Amino acid sequence: MISETRLKVRYSETDQMGITYYANYFVWMEVGRTDLIRKSGLTYREIEEKGFLLPVSYTAAKFVSPSYYDDDIVVQSVLLGIGKVSLSIGYRIFRVVENEDLRELVCIGISDLVFLDKSTKKVTRVPEFFKSFVRIEDSEEYRKAVEFIKKNLGY
Amino acid sequence: MISETRLKVRYSETDQMGITYYANYFVWMEVGRTDLIRKSGLTYREIEEKGFLLPVSYTAAKFVSPSYYDDDIVVQSVLLGIGKVSLSIGYRIFRVVENEDLRELVCIGISDLVFLDKSTKKVTRVPEFFKSFVRIEDSEEYRKAVEFIKKNLGY
Amino acid sequence: MISETRLKVRYSETDQMGITYYANYFVWMEVGRTDLIRKSGLTYREIEEKGFLLPVSYTAAKFVSPSYYDDDIVVQSVLLGIGKVSLSIGYRIFRVVENEDLRELVCIGISDLVFLDKSTKKVTRVPEFFKSFVRIEDSEEYRKAVEFIKKNLGY
Amino acid sequence: MISETRLKVRYSETDQMGITYYANYFVWMEVGRTDLIRKSGLTYREIEEKGFLLPVSYTAAKFVSPSYYDDDIVVQSVLLGIGKVSLSIGYRIFRVVENEDLRELVCIGISDLVFLDKSTKKVTRVPEFFKSFVRIEDSEEYRKAVEFIKKNLGY
Repeated sequence: MISETRLKVRYSETDQMGITYYANYFVWMEVGRTDLIRKSGLTYREIEEKGFLLPVSYTAAKFVSPSYYDDDIVVQSVLLGIGKVSLSIGYRIFRVVENEDLRELVCIGISDLVFLDKSTKKVTRVPEFFKSFVRIEDSEEYRKAVEFIKKNLGY
Repeated sequence: MISETRLKVRYSETDQMGITYYANYFVWMEVGRTDLIRKSGLTYREIEEKGFLLPVSYTAAKFVSPSYYDDDIVVQSVLLGIGKVSLSIGYRIFRVVENEDLRELVCIGISDLVFLDKSTKKVTRVPEFFKSFVRIEDSEEYRKAVEFIKKNLGY
Repeated sequence: MISETRLKVRYSETDQMGITYYANYFVWMEVGRTDLIRKSGLTYREIEEKGFLLPVSYTAAKFVSPSYYDDDIVVQSVLLGIGKVSLSIGYRIFRVVENEDLRELVCIGISDLVFLDKSTKKVTRVPEFFKSFVRIEDSEEYRKAVEFIKKNLGY
Repeated sequence: MISETRLKVRYSETDQMGITYYANYFVWMEVGRTDLIRKSGLTYREIEEKGFLLPVSYTAAKFVSPSYYDDDIVVQSVLLGIGKVSLSIGYRIFRVVENEDLRELVCIGISDLVFLDKSTKKVTRVPEFFKSFVRIEDSEEYRKAVEFIKKNLGY
């Protein structure tokens, strides 16, 4: 699944350049992956309740173009891969210009998350229940999205 | 004690008006009260470790004048009073203009904090150890600071 | 109009108490009033484009109950009054419990905003175009909301 | 120069995992590079006043270990290189454990910044005045720092 999450740029997210402050894109990526997991049938809250934590171990972003206060933003989130103890999620972030048909790419991102045991805080294997929900899709559109993100971030 | 805490306005704390975004003053108040408690001989971390939480139950701020990116900020924090289960802290926030001698008042604030039992999450009495550390001072300067803050916030 | 704005608590908005960090409620109030203005037929962006800035001169909040990660939040925003150069907006913030029928009040807030001339940065009269859009409603429900907010914040 | 900037983890910067929320490291990197530039004899404010903007075009971070509320943090910032229109800055972020002698590495970061003309918002050459202030140092320690950061972030 390529999950799409909508949000609006908040006034608090702008800086004195008059654009979205760069660190906020990482907040949006997290909003995006929360939503990807939810749409896959799980919730991040449940994952924590089952005894896991999922901190970010690596993240990167390429800022293509600025976004502005009150812009309509679309965060596309896709699973790039699952390893033994971690997973990678990629993002394409767009601002919607005028109408739905026109989307301008503003940011490309990636994040690696590691499964931790909540009680020991030690790295642990990706639980099976997770794998049955969040999966890589077998479609041309999906492959292209993954390739685009990886290529842009040298991943 | 009138505790003074120094900080610099971060780029992330500005907004597209070119000034400090208003919600950040509440973050600074918290940095100020953490420091007030530390200078009194305790740490907020210890308070949590002893089984208490200290959430804010009420807060207010009057914004007198803007502050700007990279400004040197002084947060003055004073204990306004201690009740059975709560305490009130007041703040005067200044930006330092040119040199130490000139301070411009930018914000006046107040916050009420309630003691909670960390395990039950229920309201609990202000612990005695706390009262022996954080105290109201008997001085003219202190009384004036308290009066100024209360008067300005109709408290 | 009593404007209602929906949002979800972001992971970035929680703190180590496991609840929403208090300063974020002021961000949500701003999201709420942006939406109130939009629903009235204006946008905050337009107000800035017409040469006005609308900084907050005073704000206060009473925190009734905590909210948690991924909670569905409803921000109710109502115009409390318009003066010569300023306006007051009030807020009731709820978390939605289980289903739409159950809302738990988490925060009551207020904010005063002042009209500034964008070029001179001086206080200026509330422009007429603004008054024709954002108005106090003549209904029982509205009056009750205004009264509830004012009473709770001693306003 | 390897610039060192001190800060303390704020309560607002923690999340419900009880650790520093990952996006805040990007705020700290910015505080670090502001300081690096200041120690080089310039200020970021002056750069903007001279008609330039310096947005981030790429950033990445590897999170090695968590940091906690009230931790003393050291942000080391080093210039990695200057191109025709951009520069790269690298970071090693430590938490100070117990005493000054013990530092635990928590994060390794990198950011590319592009010079923009403030009026046209177009990419422009790195101005000469900047190059005369912010420079790569010719020392063994410096080279090692640069190498360590680049290697860890595949740069």
